[in-house]
Amino acid sequence: MSGLDETLAGEILAAVDGNFEAQIAFTQALVRFPSLRGQEHTAQDFLHDEMSRRGLAMDRWTIDVAEIEPHPGFSPVKVDYANAVNVVGTHRPRAETGRSLILNGHVDVVPTGPLDMWSRPPFEPWREGDWLYGRGSGDMKAGIAANLFALDALNSLGFRPAARVHLQSVTEEECTGNGALSALVRGYRADAAIITEPEDDRLVRANAGVLWFRVHVRGAPVHVRAAGAGANAIEAAYGLIQALRRLEAEWNTRKSLYRHFEHLDHPINFNVGKIAGGDWASSVPAWCSFDCRIAIFPGVPARRAADEIEHCIRDAARLDPFLANALPDIEWNGFFAEGYTLEEGSQAEATLGRAHLRAHGGPLESMVTPAYLDGRVFVLYGGMPCLVYGPVSQNIHGFDERVSLASVKRVTGTVALFIAEWCGLEKA
Amino acid sequence: MSGLDETLAGEILAAVDGNFEAQIAFTQALVRFPSLRGQEHTAQDFLHDEMSRRGLAMDRWTIDVAEIEPHPGFSPVKVDYANAVNVVGTHRPRAETGRSLILNGHVDVVPTGPLDMWSRPPFEPWREGDWLYGRGSGDMKAGIAANLFALDALNSLGFRPAARVHLQSVTEEECTGNGALSALVRGYRADAAIITEPEDDRLVRANAGVLWFRVHVRGAPVHVRAAGAGANAIEAAYGLIQALRRLEAEWNTRKSLYRHFEHLDHPINFNVGKIAGGDWASSVPAWCSFDCRIAIFPGVPARRAADEIEHCIRDAARLDPFLANALPDIEWNGFFAEGYTLEEGSQAEATLGRAHLRAHGGPLESMVTPAYLDGRVFVLYGGMPCLVYGPVSQNIHGFDERVSLASVKRVTGTVALFIAEWCGLEKA
Repeated sequence: MSGLDETLAGEILAAVDGNFEAQIAFTQALVRFPSLRGQEHTAQDFLHDEMSRRGLAMDRWTIDVAEIEPHPGFSPVKVDYANAVNVVGTHRPRAETGRSLILNGHVDVVPTGPLDMWSRPPFEPWREGDWLYGRGSGDMKAGIAANLFALDALNSLGFRPAARVHLQSVTEEECTGNGALSALVRGYRADAAIITEPEDDRLVRANAGVLWFRVHVRGAPVHVRAAGAGANAIEAAYGLIQALRRLEAEWNTRKSLYRHFEHLDHPINFNVGKIAGGDWASSVPAWCSFDCRIAIFPGVPARRAADEIEHCIRDAARLDPFLANALPDIEWNGFFAEGYTLEEGSQAEATLGRAHLRAHGGPLESMVTPAYLDGRVFVLYGGMPCLVYGPVSQNIHGFDERVSLASVKRVTGTVALFIAEWCGLEKA
Repeated sequence: MSGLDETLAGEILAAVDGNFEAQIAFTQALVRFPSLRGQEHTAQDFLHDEMSRRGLAMDRWTIDVAEIEPHPGFSPVKVDYANAVNVVGTHRPRAETGRSLILNGHVDVVPTGPLDMWSRPPFEPWREGDWLYGRGSGDMKAGIAANLFALDALNSLGFRPAARVHLQSVTEEECTGNGALSALVRGYRADAAIITEPEDDRLVRANAGVLWFRVHVRGAPVHVRAAGAGANAIEAAYGLIQALRRLEAEWNTRKSLYRHFEHLDHPINFNVGKIAGGDWASSVPAWCSFDCRIAIFPGVPARRAADEIEHCIRDAARLDPFLANALPDIEWNGFFAEGYTLEEGSQAEATLGRAHLRAHGGPLESMVTPAYLDGRVFVLYGGMPCLVYGPVSQNIHGFDERVSLASVKRVTGTVALFIAEWCGLEKA
């Protein structure tokens, strides 16, 4: 198959365009659900109903830790999964003549941070020119809407995919990847997958794995009148953060060993993202805990990287007179995820390239990202080509997060054209 | 007056001894009230009733910020004072023949810190050998009990002070000193004051003032995939902490200018006692706040020291590319208190010396402490000699805080002998 009929392609893009104000309104409605970790369920129920209304066969379930825990792609869970609900809507054609597809997105969003650093309330999305603002607008509710409205565009022309299509909205992408994993373990497979993450109109060629951990420093506190140098858990914690920065630098020196990463300036990013310590200004703090995130190169086993981190922290602690007496605890409390590479030359990638060329008017570029992506679940454990590809965004994980609406429209067109070619079409 | 009759002194010490198990039980009962900041009132109601039962004239009031705010000894308040209740019980003799006295203690205790670092629950006091354990056992519920049981000992012999005595239990000593200040502003004055703080059986000759402040670091957060060095609020905060450590070192070099402090190794202690920052391991933190405490030499105006601290933080921030764009905010959120010196040669000190010699069997030693004491309220603003003197303790502000019961008994004896000589006695 070398591509779609030009006329049909034009009609599909026109259908996306014609329905785009409704798509924006839908995206805004989705942003209004504050689907922070632990409270994704209201947004998921909304999506369930929207998919169901469109005639998809619905599957909605709560992640069962016991079910995914033995899987090598599992990440440790330290929170309650009572509201960690996945939603999948399935389209089945009358005759399965094309290739099957998973369209995936994650509904969870990261915390807003201090509200006074936003121009407007983060869960009340607003438009300014080409931009749609709000927490989750880019990462990645615009992508979830694009998946749904790509199907809508085909429907509006009287077509449906001529192959099985699963529309997935998963949770836990921002902390463990266990949502996508749970869908895989539940049996969802297809000939290809697309995840419409905000990737600046590009295809992800490779991405880093990610580890999360919390370091607990404990020591003997005293009244500040007796404070001696080095007996302060908060300051001791900083010594460990510095050691981890040195480990980050060392890992970055290894980049030449990893294809696709050798030309990146700084492929391995370490972040201390959260800290809490002490109880009282006049008590020398006896405890301090800090949350970290670090990337690992694809192919590096998570356990091996974790061992290096543990050694790094313990070695630094042993050199500190305060910490040596009470070695820090290291808690693996989230991502324990390996990176992946999208092998070049797949039919799925070629199909995406043609669709992108038509929708965007230029060739598809690929990129390497040091951020975690659920793509690894499909590629490493599902044996599927996974195309992580999506719109232009800014300040995801920051304040005044925003997504480019022109880009969202083009991406929706690309996905619709991809479906038409990959799955084929049948009359609705 | 050159001292008490030896026989009477012996009887008083014997009375303290005879009632000491009851005093320990009382102290334990008082420790059981978790009189943390903002919830001192239940302990205060208990003390109110205990004092009232002994026939003292009771005064109980909630600190009125508006009333103390104009006072030069006031410290900024950032919490609700709804339960910041002071209690004073007053004894008035039939004939005022002696010298009046305030016996003061503070009922507030500092936070426990992580409970798992205690051998037993901190508000369930326990005895082991000579030690009574529990949060507040030393700092300073044993002292409050000593004040009350010193009067009880005299009573048990059929005596009462022949002068006005105010038994004060104040709040807010651990954070502002506004409790003692409120009692002063309410009009409480006497010829001398004793505060039975845990001072290892010694008299405080001088103490440092204390300032509290919170530093707020803010910046622009991003997804960690875009993290550049130096854009992390948690790590930026650490640069400011280091600058404050340098200020601490500089202030310590000035010690030769301050009498009583010139021979101390490290009279000025800085402490970063609490920290909080960031929301998510995978978001570069946009905010970090940390709480500090620093000492100042007696005679240094709090405002002048505060100016130096503000300059120190802002100068350090201006050298940091991240902080220079968003200078940290500095919030004065507690102690804004100057130090004091107890002038040598007072009659009150001489009287305490004689009482101590009898109760302890050795001469009274004095000490200089770098910790805050409410003594400054009496000395600087009340014109009263204030004797801060109390039992041997360990780990105040730490875990397994404890007070020596043998020491508490001796201190109680000292206070009882002091009352007998300073106030004189009349038949009950």
